[in-house]
Amino acid sequence: MATPLLKPGPDSASQAVEPTSPVAHFGADEALAMDAGVDLAPWQIAYQTAGTLNEARSNAVLVCHALTGDQHVVNTHPVTGKPGWWDRLVGPGKPVDTDRYFVICANVVGSCMGTTGPASLNPATGRAYGLDFPLVTIRDMVRGQAMLLDRLGIKDLFLCIGGSMGGMQVLQWAASYPERVFAAMPIATGARHSAQNIAFHEVGRQAILADPNWHGGRYLDVGTRPAKGLGVARMGAHITYLSEPALHRKFGRRLQDRDAPTFSFDADFQIESYLRHQGITFVERFDANAYLYLTRAMDYFDLAADHGGVLANAFRGTRTRFCIMSFTSDWLFPTADSRAIVHALNAAAAPVAFVEVESDKGHDAFLLDEPAMISAAKGFIAAAARERGL
Amino acid sequence: MATPLLKPGPDSASQAVEPTSPVAHFGADEALAMDAGVDLAPWQIAYQTAGTLNEARSNAVLVCHALTGDQHVVNTHPVTGKPGWWDRLVGPGKPVDTDRYFVICANVVGSCMGTTGPASLNPATGRAYGLDFPLVTIRDMVRGQAMLLDRLGIKDLFLCIGGSMGGMQVLQWAASYPERVFAAMPIATGARHSAQNIAFHEVGRQAILADPNWHGGRYLDVGTRPAKGLGVARMGAHITYLSEPALHRKFGRRLQDRDAPTFSFDADFQIESYLRHQGITFVERFDANAYLYLTRAMDYFDLAADHGGVLANAFRGTRTRFCIMSFTSDWLFPTADSRAIVHALNAAAAPVAFVEVESDKGHDAFLLDEPAMISAAKGFIAAAARERGL
Repeated sequence: MATPLLKPGPDSASQAVEPTSPVAHFGADEALAMDAGVDLAPWQIAYQTAGTLNEARSNAVLVCHALTGDQHVVNTHPVTGKPGWWDRLVGPGKPVDTDRYFVICANVVGSCMGTTGPASLNPATGRAYGLDFPLVTIRDMVRGQAMLLDRLGIKDLFLCIGGSMGGMQVLQWAASYPERVFAAMPIATGARHSAQNIAFHEVGRQAILADPNWHGGRYLDVGTRPAKGLGVARMGAHITYLSEPALHRKFGRRLQDRDAPTFSFDADFQIESYLRHQGITFVERFDANAYLYLTRAMDYFDLAADHGGVLANAFRGTRTRFCIMSFTSDWLFPTADSRAIVHALNAAAAPVAFVEVESDKGHDAFLLDEPAMISAAKGFIAAAARERGL
Repeated sequence: MATPLLKPGPDSASQAVEPTSPVAHFGADEALAMDAGVDLAPWQIAYQTAGTLNEARSNAVLVCHALTGDQHVVNTHPVTGKPGWWDRLVGPGKPVDTDRYFVICANVVGSCMGTTGPASLNPATGRAYGLDFPLVTIRDMVRGQAMLLDRLGIKDLFLCIGGSMGGMQVLQWAASYPERVFAAMPIATGARHSAQNIAFHEVGRQAILADPNWHGGRYLDVGTRPAKGLGVARMGAHITYLSEPALHRKFGRRLQDRDAPTFSFDADFQIESYLRHQGITFVERFDANAYLYLTRAMDYFDLAADHGGVLANAFRGTRTRFCIMSFTSDWLFPTADSRAIVHALNAAAAPVAFVEVESDKGHDAFLLDEPAMISAAKGFIAAAARERGL
């Protein structure tokens, strides 16, 4: 049984729309057991695949997406028309080579691109869930992906890879299902969200909650959207994805289509115009409640806390090969966060490589054209493939 | 002629209130010539003093306040009831010793604590200025302070000192009126606002503009306040005043009065509760439009651009002694910004000392108990006093 997605029109009540990806449906007897103590059913997960599953079913790669990402990792995005968000790393001849591997990328539980989340129809009420949707954790996302793999007949993964919130999922996969992950590559991530990161997320959430069009989370019922609040949240978050040097190089104090400041609150500076654009385009493709839920999932993530306060305990006895990667100018998930993971893996005697990529592009570097990242990923994945006999 | 301040009540129309500080009034023939091309008149400036002006009038110290600061540098704040905001540095026996020096601190033009700003009555309309108030620059603030000193019969300053936006004013003082500044101490500041800093300010402004209670800046006319928008702006800005290590030490991932996360959007984490408190208390004491204006003034600040693109040109021929101070964990005005000022002063052959204080407290360190800051300030100011014959 499907749970249709609800999408608000600018001046109409909510209406059901068809997801633009393959969807796996799970019925009342296939509930997703969530950390919040709720059995979510029915539920569904939207995904994309690329490449071909080999006969031994041994070449599957799961790509885990970040906070505002989705399943469109290599294919053109159905809403924005942009290329796949990680087509630099995934595709024919790329490190995650779709000529060799079968790539799966699924929209996480709680998001809004076809997988069940707060914008989905709550069968108990006939309305969108809104804040009645249970809080989602990174572990819930991973449980959902595991159920999708079961449905697809994939017992284990050759590789699990992702950046930022996607990297959190990779770590959780390695901890929850070590026997199902041959190689793991968590990038630009951490085993827990820092106080500063929680703080930035909280500001974004408060911006959404302050928007009267949010209507206590029931905006789909009344046909509005908290676009201003969500836009402000995105603008603030976007700064944390970049770096001071990158902003200076890209924008500096340059003015926008003018020779002198206007002495007004117009977007005099290019950086202002750029940020406003980021806010405006984001709200066209993302659901505000989903943003609340996914930021909260990241805040709650603390893998050590789930294992007696010792991160190494999350990985004891693992046979998964790890490659941990960070970027020098990433201040959202600084290299120290990656080092903490490496130390824990060392303590657990797990095979681990660590790459710190010199980059001034900040956290978003993992999504960008970073040759050192590409070549390191290529090397790690090729070596793992040889060990796997692929 | 006075320009009364307007203050909104929670459910009443705006009403005039008396400022709680001495106020210097400037009439129609004493306009403030603003960079926006407007002659502001009438206008007024509220200030506080401490200590006694000596007979030679040679012991005056001007303290310049930061973005959300005010004139209450040593005295108890009339709204919050808190001690003076810089009583660690200013007071009897302190580096800025009120037993020896005559200290003046004035609310900047464009602010909301008694000096003319967007919440003041516009004599042309009989309503609050709102966005009809001309854009304010750091130079305008300094011009206003200079007119206050003229009024008080103070020809020159022994010392001009301030942090953050206050430090920008100190730099502007040294550039605009070199002969009036014997010693200058700009702390935790820069000669221009970076792209990242402009970006953070723009997010805060958009949060205010997104609040429907802002009413296009005319909220005083209708008796509302954009409290939610201003609160979100403050929460976001507050993160930038701290540092990741300070947040980690102070809050970490500790929960607020509970043993486990609530799986809700409540303030589970102490950092969330702390930030919400920062937002709520700020809106009780600050005007939203003033926040727009003062953030814009900082964004526009670029001392080199005002001097042919060469910062040293701002200081050529100066006889002012400088002490520049930064803090290792300040990422809003990192040490590199202070070094740029030092290099420019060196190039201008100005006497300059540079102190980088080891601190994990971030930008706000200049307001906190930092023994190294206190002792360095004490040494610099005492040496300058000896040179001045005080």
